[in-house]
Amino acid sequence: MNFILLIDYAGTFAFAISGIRLASAKQFDLFGAYVVGLVTAIGGGTIRDLLLGVTPFWMLQPSYLVVTALALIFVFLLGKKLILLNNTFFIFDAIGLGLFVVVGIEKSLAAHFPFWVAITMGMITGSAGGILRDILINEIPLIFRKDIYALACLFGGLVFFTCFQLGVSALITQIVSAFSVILIRVLAVKYHISLPVLRGHDNETPSKIL
Amino acid sequence: MNFILLIDYAGTFAFAISGIRLASAKQFDLFGAYVVGLVTAIGGGTIRDLLLGVTPFWMLQPSYLVVTALALIFVFLLGKKLILLNNTFFIFDAIGLGLFVVVGIEKSLAAHFPFWVAITMGMITGSAGGILRDILINEIPLIFRKDIYALACLFGGLVFFTCFQLGVSALITQIVSAFSVILIRVLAVKYHISLPVLRGHDNETPSKIL
Amino acid sequence: MNFILLIDYAGTFAFAISGIRLASAKQFDLFGAYVVGLVTAIGGGTIRDLLLGVTPFWMLQPSYLVVTALALIFVFLLGKKLILLNNTFFIFDAIGLGLFVVVGIEKSLAAHFPFWVAITMGMITGSAGGILRDILINEIPLIFRKDIYALACLFGGLVFFTCFQLGVSALITQIVSAFSVILIRVLAVKYHISLPVLRGHDNETPSKIL
Repeated sequence: MNFILLIDYAGTFAFAISGIRLASAKQFDLFGAYVVGLVTAIGGGTIRDLLLGVTPFWMLQPSYLVVTALALIFVFLLGKKLILLNNTFFIFDAIGLGLFVVVGIEKSLAAHFPFWVAITMGMITGSAGGILRDILINEIPLIFRKDIYALACLFGGLVFFTCFQLGVSALITQIVSAFSVILIRVLAVKYHISLPVLRGHDNETPSKIL
Repeated sequence: MNFILLIDYAGTFAFAISGIRLASAKQFDLFGAYVVGLVTAIGGGTIRDLLLGVTPFWMLQPSYLVVTALALIFVFLLGKKLILLNNTFFIFDAIGLGLFVVVGIEKSLAAHFPFWVAITMGMITGSAGGILRDILINEIPLIFRKDIYALACLFGGLVFFTCFQLGVSALITQIVSAFSVILIRVLAVKYHISLPVLRGHDNETPSKIL
Repeated sequence: MNFILLIDYAGTFAFAISGIRLASAKQFDLFGAYVVGLVTAIGGGTIRDLLLGVTPFWMLQPSYLVVTALALIFVFLLGKKLILLNNTFFIFDAIGLGLFVVVGIEKSLAAHFPFWVAITMGMITGSAGGILRDILINEIPLIFRKDIYALACLFGGLVFFTCFQLGVSALITQIVSAFSVILIRVLAVKYHISLPVLRGHDNETPSKIL
């Protein structure tokens, strides 16, 4: 339990850092940076919980607000030196993503939803925080255009489903699924693997289409 | 029942197509285009269901995810030829809008909300998906500036209310309301009818106003 | 009761006015301006109620939709002369903010959430509407970069908590907390007090960070 909690906080910290740094690059004040960091870290799980009809997880214990505050202080103190830690943050971020996907799936199954909903919720838990972050800083969501992110969540979900069908124990299922997410994510970034882009609509504007 | 289901899927398909095409024009990858298409198709109904306090409709059966996947394949295969089908999509879109408004009203009345809430939910069901779509692609929501869209939903809602007060049968009420939405929408686009714009605030920026 | 209701409507009116004016500056049509005004006025309370798991307050009585409609008519009739009333609106806005924070805290405590959740909900009630407004008009949320806004809400929340711990009567607690919010807000705008901005990340883009 303590180990999972540690990973949870490390993932929250890494997600919050990414939001705080992007907000800083846009000249947000300290409070704005905190909010963007918090939304990045807890946004996916919050949307999941609202869709599942349960109380958002972060309202049950103050630790997520505290971890985000620590992330803010961390960014404030380290400043430009943060760039040296980019690889570390990337690993934390990938580990957090793996855990978030597994947590999203298990929480949905516990609420008696079928597997296809659970896998969707795993993807939402992992991805929606980053989408909300990019909306807040007024950019097109990064995960829609670069590297493989949500697909790593989908793959982890399918691995979870396969393990479940094969009767693999809960612990092994969790570990294997989370590692699948991390593996796909690391490979995608290392080898710059991206999904193809739909072509042939370059000149269209909303007013032309609708 | 089957007929309504068919219209529901046609509307979902048309809404998803509009999201996927706009995402493609912004160089989103396949996954990004899928998400934008899905949010366009189910976003309005999802917000409605969260406000009503019921489980979002698309979590009860996987067909909406499947229809959106078909829409993605369709756009991928047809490419530039899609432009030739613009009128067909517009009709599908208008029919879907009519149905969505009626579904939104009926679901709200079934949840024991008063008529003014139900009409508002009809408008949200029809309009909010397109607003979320435009937020995701980082554009100002189109329906706030062009043609008459939400007003068509409002008109359909008032027609529904009038039929209800006059004791018209449920089936006729549904059909007449949906057709009112479609009619207003078609007339607005055909004759380029738009709502007036508020004047006299052109030079104001957020910082000047607040 | 009537006095609180009056303040509630004055605050709603001022919040709606700010949304309508910003929407007008972006050439939104009348309906678009109405929606932006409404979201500004009720958005914070709606997110709070969804997080608390209760029916959004504005769905229980139509007055908020009506007050927003009056705000739209008001902006339409006064046009450029509105600028002369900027100070009045600012005061209404600050008073509304104070009330919204107190309402958000009390509603959360009534739903049996702990104080740190209640204070967070007070901040969300006061701030989230303005954030949603700026997302709809496709601008970076103003409150993340200018003056002290959410911090005023936080301060009011801490004052509420202190009064509560000291056993101060409910009425006095409400008044003192609301006034704290208004005071901080007025001082921040009058003396152009802003939170510091995080430095040293000016050249970072999302793609460099993630």
